Amino acid sequence: MTVKVAINGYGTIGKRVADAVASQDDMEVIGVVKTRPSFEARMALEKGYALYAASKENIDDFKKSKIEVSGTIGDMLDKADIVIDATPGDTGEEYKKLYEKHGLKAIWQGGEDHELTGFSFNSEANYGDALGRQFARVVSCNTTGLVRVLYALDSAYGVKKARVTLMRRAADPGDIKTGPINALVPDPIKLPSHHGPDVNSILPDIDITTMAVKISTTLMHLHGLNIELKKACGEDDIIKMFSARPRIRLVSSKDKIKSTAEAMELAKDMGRPRGDMWENVVWKDSIAFNKGELYFFQAIHQESDVVPENIDAIRALMEMEKDGMRSIKKTNKALGILAPKDTA
Amino acid sequence: MTVKVAINGYGTIGKRVADAVASQDDMEVIGVVKTRPSFEARMALEKGYALYAASKENIDDFKKSKIEVSGTIGDMLDKADIVIDATPGDTGEEYKKLYEKHGLKAIWQGGEDHELTGFSFNSEANYGDALGRQFARVVSCNTTGLVRVLYALDSAYGVKKARVTLMRRAADPGDIKTGPINALVPDPIKLPSHHGPDVNSILPDIDITTMAVKISTTLMHLHGLNIELKKACGEDDIIKMFSARPRIRLVSSKDKIKSTAEAMELAKDMGRPRGDMWENVVWKDSIAFNKGELYFFQAIHQESDVVPENIDAIRALMEMEKDGMRSIKKTNKALGILAPKDTA
Amino acid sequence: MTVKVAINGYGTIGKRVADAVASQDDMEVIGVVKTRPSFEARMALEKGYALYAASKENIDDFKKSKIEVSGTIGDMLDKADIVIDATPGDTGEEYKKLYEKHGLKAIWQGGEDHELTGFSFNSEANYGDALGRQFARVVSCNTTGLVRVLYALDSAYGVKKARVTLMRRAADPGDIKTGPINALVPDPIKLPSHHGPDVNSILPDIDITTMAVKISTTLMHLHGLNIELKKACGEDDIIKMFSARPRIRLVSSKDKIKSTAEAMELAKDMGRPRGDMWENVVWKDSIAFNKGELYFFQAIHQESDVVPENIDAIRALMEMEKDGMRSIKKTNKALGILAPKDTA
Amino acid sequence: MTVKVAINGYGTIGKRVADAVASQDDMEVIGVVKTRPSFEARMALEKGYALYAASKENIDDFKKSKIEVSGTIGDMLDKADIVIDATPGDTGEEYKKLYEKHGLKAIWQGGEDHELTGFSFNSEANYGDALGRQFARVVSCNTTGLVRVLYALDSAYGVKKARVTLMRRAADPGDIKTGPINALVPDPIKLPSHHGPDVNSILPDIDITTMAVKISTTLMHLHGLNIELKKACGEDDIIKMFSARPRIRLVSSKDKIKSTAEAMELAKDMGRPRGDMWENVVWKDSIAFNKGELYFFQAIHQESDVVPENIDAIRALMEMEKDGMRSIKKTNKALGILAPKDTA
Repeated sequence: MTVKVAINGYGTIGKRVADAVASQDDMEVIGVVKTRPSFEARMALEKGYALYAASKENIDDFKKSKIEVSGTIGDMLDKADIVIDATPGDTGEEYKKLYEKHGLKAIWQGGEDHELTGFSFNSEANYGDALGRQFARVVSCNTTGLVRVLYALDSAYGVKKARVTLMRRAADPGDIKTGPINALVPDPIKLPSHHGPDVNSILPDIDITTMAVKISTTLMHLHGLNIELKKACGEDDIIKMFSARPRIRLVSSKDKIKSTAEAMELAKDMGRPRGDMWENVVWKDSIAFNKGELYFFQAIHQESDVVPENIDAIRALMEMEKDGMRSIKKTNKALGILAPKDTA
Repeated sequence: MTVKVAINGYGTIGKRVADAVASQDDMEVIGVVKTRPSFEARMALEKGYALYAASKENIDDFKKSKIEVSGTIGDMLDKADIVIDATPGDTGEEYKKLYEKHGLKAIWQGGEDHELTGFSFNSEANYGDALGRQFARVVSCNTTGLVRVLYALDSAYGVKKARVTLMRRAADPGDIKTGPINALVPDPIKLPSHHGPDVNSILPDIDITTMAVKISTTLMHLHGLNIELKKACGEDDIIKMFSARPRIRLVSSKDKIKSTAEAMELAKDMGRPRGDMWENVVWKDSIAFNKGELYFFQAIHQESDVVPENIDAIRALMEMEKDGMRSIKKTNKALGILAPKDTA
Repeated sequence: MTVKVAINGYGTIGKRVADAVASQDDMEVIGVVKTRPSFEARMALEKGYALYAASKENIDDFKKSKIEVSGTIGDMLDKADIVIDATPGDTGEEYKKLYEKHGLKAIWQGGEDHELTGFSFNSEANYGDALGRQFARVVSCNTTGLVRVLYALDSAYGVKKARVTLMRRAADPGDIKTGPINALVPDPIKLPSHHGPDVNSILPDIDITTMAVKISTTLMHLHGLNIELKKACGEDDIIKMFSARPRIRLVSSKDKIKSTAEAMELAKDMGRPRGDMWENVVWKDSIAFNKGELYFFQAIHQESDVVPENIDAIRALMEMEKDGMRSIKKTNKALGILAPKDTA
Repeated sequence: MTVKVAINGYGTIGKRVADAVASQDDMEVIGVVKTRPSFEARMALEKGYALYAASKENIDDFKKSKIEVSGTIGDMLDKADIVIDATPGDTGEEYKKLYEKHGLKAIWQGGEDHELTGFSFNSEANYGDALGRQFARVVSCNTTGLVRVLYALDSAYGVKKARVTLMRRAADPGDIKTGPINALVPDPIKLPSHHGPDVNSILPDIDITTMAVKISTTLMHLHGLNIELKKACGEDDIIKMFSARPRIRLVSSKDKIKSTAEAMELAKDMGRPRGDMWENVVWKDSIAFNKGELYFFQAIHQESDVVPENIDAIRALMEMEKDGMRSIKKTNKALGILAPKDTA
């Protein structure tokens, strides 16, 4: 029997998780919640998802727009085994009570605090600890990207200290309200940024300090990483080790991938839905040891890297699969995340 | 038997035409030409296209990058019935001789002059005139977008005069070299722009004047149109008439599509390959008569709107289908261009 | 004796008008109002302007920031002859009552509706009608730019019809909150835009229709103009006529001014304060007749083109000068707006 | 007697150095060289600088554009004591011979290699070593910005190790050709970047590693710095020490300066020519110790921070002043670089 997944919030993350759930053979989308009529609501229906209004008051809006809804969020939750909360944030506590009332398991996104669920999730780092839990939080796109490489490095060579500069895309591609149009915005100005402690919510023993800047671009975040390792190793060791990870994609400037723009072009050429890049994009030719410390660049697709983690989190909370790596492989296969045949 | 199509130039347009050819049941891709190794070349191979080098000198480069090539362009042309030339331009005359030597039919893109082939093509406006020709040019993205609406308006109500401001995206999303980063660039400064005469290469009797500006954006072109019609009609007539056209997609700001960014988001949500939008995106709620003249906005996806026109052009030159509208419908169906179920 | 000018609102427009007032020999700044502490407030003090808080509640904020204020807005208004209202808008009615209570004349900006004052002002078009009025509104940057060229053309050759596409910078250079970062946004989507009627608030007999688009750039607005004239004339006539206007600056792409970016670079090279360009920047080599209609491009510096108009409006309301052109020349001379010696 | 300075290359840096020289009482501009006619050439004449063509071949171009030239570069060099080379780069060796032939001292910019002159200059770090030399290179904008803070920190507390991420504006504001419009471009992809070694050309003993990224913005570079110091100190010590430096300007987000955009707005409000910011802009409230290491953000105005260094370099090479700090103070006073009265 397939697990019934409800999606509360059908925006950037919600719509992607819905499609990813629909692509798995052990779970199904039993409904999605949208607050207001929009092209996204119409597309949900065209894809065959049952659409629910966030509240009774919104039903009329949908009717006026000739968009058919199957009821309100409560109707959807009655049919679900687990809910993915992809609402805009700051509604965590309120919805938590609602999900508890319906006796549901639930997964939130990185916009919520660790404290809401008391458990922060990453497929590779702590799948086992999530088994059977009622609530979990999939950490943000940036934290997910950091945990993937730091967990891998720490497991293999031990991370003594990590210093990371996060260059953040200031708005998603479909967002026309948010700036800046032409500026670099240190954010937060008061250092360090929250990303380090957020990594520690999953990997408590990593010594990490982060700085973050908002930038006039929409495509991807870019991380500049400096890492001191405990065990000696070489650039080729790091490349080999990253190549073996399930959600790191090595690319090379020799293949004409020199920027976040070309990394996105690659995702489009790979036929990815919405041009998404679920993996960390690590530049193979940026991996370098300098004065004994490791440096490299990675790009993170803020709209999609947490999507496969949500799928694995469903399996962990529902105890559909005890072994994390088996869940990761199953998710990857269904989505089509395959190791590249070759890179320069 | 399927028609064998060779693709010379596997960049923005070439790779999209290749995939579109592959999606049709009456034609096949027998090879694609790439000048230098790159991730795009690797992807061509992963998709199963035979890859050819532009010249012997390039073969070593591919070998060094461990990218397998099946020979040079000449080898590919030997196997083809027709070639799509999607090279960067200014190579028209040279390649024309090569195609003639191989006794091939050929289709160029809008970067070449009308004079190269003596015939400029648009599926809806002059399919019949293209039947059996050896050479044709599919006009540029902007001209294709203009011809689609002007042909429709002229057929239904007669176009007395058209004045259009073209706000052009200055670079494609994957292009990191071209600016401006923050400016508006009238281009050409000397008015009018070439787009009006280019429309006349297909619709010689339309009185049209155009102005064009290059803009710090990568997503789509935007056209602001002012049109004087010969016959009286109302806004609803225009909406109804555009709705019935095969490659015009009406959208509405009431559905939260208010910009080129959200038009691209729609294409992604529709599951379009690479997030492409093959149709003109016309804002239904921008269609307005003011002091007797028609005004509206349309967005044109520069990377993809000429793709279905290339497919139809192949059918016309190869005389695979005598009726233009039947070819258009066949192309649209294979690509998945369907009329929207509903719009606000 | 010099006229005492109070400035309510010391942001983009207010601070520029303050400096422009200070540069004239027949008026002086008696104070400026700022709501909250900021570097702009500190700079006001460094320039020697008396600083007033918008209300008593704000005074503490300034104290905490160690910024000295001379009182609240009421204290400032007691000392003034006339007030420039450069507040963010939507506060028009409220402040109007306050100014009336203080028996003051007042000038608002284009963010307010025509109805607030019943009189919209442009130095060249209707200075005489403003003489002695209590209240006036200086129209917006875009409308000011349009009125300057349309008034000139109408006076010389008669404007039969004007169709204008306004490509608007979406945010000012110092604004980091407003987007879009990468999009073209028709705004309003429902045509025509309000700019035409706003021109008619000053030039009621001009037949004009406008379309407007918000764009990912911060520097200047760009207008693409199509104009049908009543009397026949040539391109050289238009150039000569524009050259003689006091606030039109002809530039040429032959001088390497090809965009709004280079127009701003010119202003910087001219030593303009804040790199401002008070004049309409009209591309001489864009002026063209096509099929009997006039076309040209002009760039409008949204932060500063209304500044000299505010100065003239002060003189008109205060009846310091009866003749509009004499006020314009006096303002221009004090600011340093001189005809260019040469252009290509 | 004043020293006669020739400026070879009147672009972004050249025109700014010319104005800075003109503002000093102990030196004068005896001519500027421009290759082609442009608005910048016209402005040079309007400012009273004698204009010279780069070669005889160019003189006709200027004549056609009605721009008066006083001869060619050789004529200018005959009259000079020293030449500032602000040509686009890669012409170093060639021009070096020409200057030697004229028996001139010369100063190049950071686009040239250290080896060209064998001496790299920064006013604070090594003025004394430059006294009487024939040739020197003022290091690039980024390196100058780094040397200013690292020299200060090293002098006061000893720099054990510095790790810096440079987020570089990809094009200057007036440059409309260079992208990217929407991307983050690690450049170089192969770490570390050349900026560390370039710092070592002046401060050979500093252990520094740098990463650099090109970004879709035009205003300023932004540096994220991580520094391990040798001696213990606190945040207030660093603030106090930076406050005392002649070319560091502390700003605060509490004063609403939160980005490079507002840092540029500050420069405009300060009345700086062209809105230039000659000092490093260091965010006071970003200065933080975390796990014993110092972190902070600084913004660097790529168009102008090397300008005062060029002035000091002239004095050092010409031995007009033996004491570096006296030259710095003289330059600062003439330009108007004053310590801010107050900051939040």
